[in-house]
Amino acid sequence: MTIALQSLSDFRAALQALPVPDAAAMAAARARDAQLTKPPGALGRLEDLAVWMAGWQGREKPVADRPQVVIFAGNHGVVAKGVSAFPAEVTVQMVANFRAGGAAINQLSRQFGAQMSVEEIDLDRPTRDFTQAPAMDEAELLAALNRGWEAVDPKADLLVVGEMGIGNTTSAAAICAALLGGEGAQWVGRGTGVDDAGLTRKAAVVDDGLRCHAGAIGDPLRVLQCLGGREIAAMTGAIARARLLRIPVILDGFICCSAALVLERMVAGALDHCLAGHESAETAHPRVLAALGKEPILSLRLRLGEGSGAALAIAIVQGALACHGGMATFGEAGIAEG
Amino acid sequence: MTIALQSLSDFRAALQALPVPDAAAMAAARARDAQLTKPPGALGRLEDLAVWMAGWQGREKPVADRPQVVIFAGNHGVVAKGVSAFPAEVTVQMVANFRAGGAAINQLSRQFGAQMSVEEIDLDRPTRDFTQAPAMDEAELLAALNRGWEAVDPKADLLVVGEMGIGNTTSAAAICAALLGGEGAQWVGRGTGVDDAGLTRKAAVVDDGLRCHAGAIGDPLRVLQCLGGREIAAMTGAIARARLLRIPVILDGFICCSAALVLERMVAGALDHCLAGHESAETAHPRVLAALGKEPILSLRLRLGEGSGAALAIAIVQGALACHGGMATFGEAGIAEG
Repeated sequence: MTIALQSLSDFRAALQALPVPDAAAMAAARARDAQLTKPPGALGRLEDLAVWMAGWQGREKPVADRPQVVIFAGNHGVVAKGVSAFPAEVTVQMVANFRAGGAAINQLSRQFGAQMSVEEIDLDRPTRDFTQAPAMDEAELLAALNRGWEAVDPKADLLVVGEMGIGNTTSAAAICAALLGGEGAQWVGRGTGVDDAGLTRKAAVVDDGLRCHAGAIGDPLRVLQCLGGREIAAMTGAIARARLLRIPVILDGFICCSAALVLERMVAGALDHCLAGHESAETAHPRVLAALGKEPILSLRLRLGEGSGAALAIAIVQGALACHGGMATFGEAGIAEG
Repeated sequence: MTIALQSLSDFRAALQALPVPDAAAMAAARARDAQLTKPPGALGRLEDLAVWMAGWQGREKPVADRPQVVIFAGNHGVVAKGVSAFPAEVTVQMVANFRAGGAAINQLSRQFGAQMSVEEIDLDRPTRDFTQAPAMDEAELLAALNRGWEAVDPKADLLVVGEMGIGNTTSAAAICAALLGGEGAQWVGRGTGVDDAGLTRKAAVVDDGLRCHAGAIGDPLRVLQCLGGREIAAMTGAIARARLLRIPVILDGFICCSAALVLERMVAGALDHCLAGHESAETAHPRVLAALGKEPILSLRLRLGEGSGAALAIAIVQGALACHGGMATFGEAGIAEG
């Protein structure tokens, strides 16, 4: 049974007591790695991934046999400002596509053995236009955090959180600008493919949002409430819950990372259980990754969202763990060490 | 039944009539991609991979359900010059490890559904020390090319060729220096982990080899004969055969790319059916990739060989093809296009 958050204070309090990686399991994994039939370090980043996973899962031979992919969907009031190349109804249409199995994330989840679910959050009730008012009130933010919090399967051994929400790169850009500084123009990108005029509108909308909520900027959770979206807040909630459950998370692109950034700014180190799955083609994503201190596993110019880049990285983690768990040691194989 | 090469002239002749990608299949794949439920271009490099695979497999929806991994193993006379951190007997020990299922490539092959086989080539008969004589005579080169040629499964839908051979980064460096110019020091790296003194010895050995075979440098196939190894020549043969069978190939690291480079220098465009699976941590590998005009799919600091980096990239190709083949179109999903 999941115990939902009763208040935003509950959420803030939960972040004050975060579990840390199991040092003994990491040491055991490192010792095992040193005995595997390969030159030391020859599997490069795969070795680091295996040891890191060992720490979070608390075992010498970590696994990624039960990855979970959860997609959160929400609608955004700022879409009325012309910030997206697609109309708002595409959010609900894409949710139907997820349920029918027709989206990219369905194929990637199936390919890499992940269970996938979709959580649509009040699609008929977009957030308020954040240039005019806070996107959500406190109760709405809490409800969205809880949707993410409760969506995490405690039995999952790896988590990907993805999103769908026409207009949400604008919201993500506003969150990044508020938490990392700079103007709208430095954080907006083409999203699903806006033209130059759309890009200019996005930057202006972000700047208007920053002005409207200048008083919130010192408090990351209020930034999320004022400038975020329901699906973004749900990702924030899910990433936090995964930490409490010691489930490693693979972060996706710009929007997912904006949700994660809220946690990191609330409590430094809150994303220690997260990998950067990929560097996306959305302009500002590399800068968010740099701010989070995360090196992406993949860099394949994806800019789709839906958790697609992170889902692709599941395969790399699985490859790393297959090597770590399945390889013979020098002793077992009777091979001379270098 | 495989028709083996009767002579080196057969091999040269085979490269004069190479099949090209199926333009109609590529156009069909591109048209399909444009209809899939995502913004145009949003799957980035995955889209290019799917269209490229369509061209080589000659179908709108290419597959990677039967990937083949072949590991070639050979021994090198130059090991006597102290160019490796591991003794030569490790080659045969690692072959036993491949057969027992204990190496990294076994785990990766299993994880991504590839059939894997090992071809050991005269391990008790190392190539000659190339600082003194051609590494192979013509008959030995032909035999090695044929081992690769015959190892390719005509039913495979994707091929990875890997290698094991203590000393073979020295051989690969010599091939690259001969075909791309420069001195030994510019092409040698730490391989399985030689120290500074070993690195200096490797560079000197390469320079000695280049001097000894200066007359061969204008003919890539003679370069392979004089400076290569049996497993390297087998990879050259396998990559060429795959082209004739229109089977796409994922190239591995520095040694595999040196084998591929021989083909590219024999006939420009001979590697059009090859992807670069990864950029390895071996010093000169990025420069070989640049010379081949190939952008690596992954960059995870692997430096193991065995086809491991390429095998990991199988998963990315599979992810790309799963999306391309399995996603709904806008029409099927009833979604408004942007």
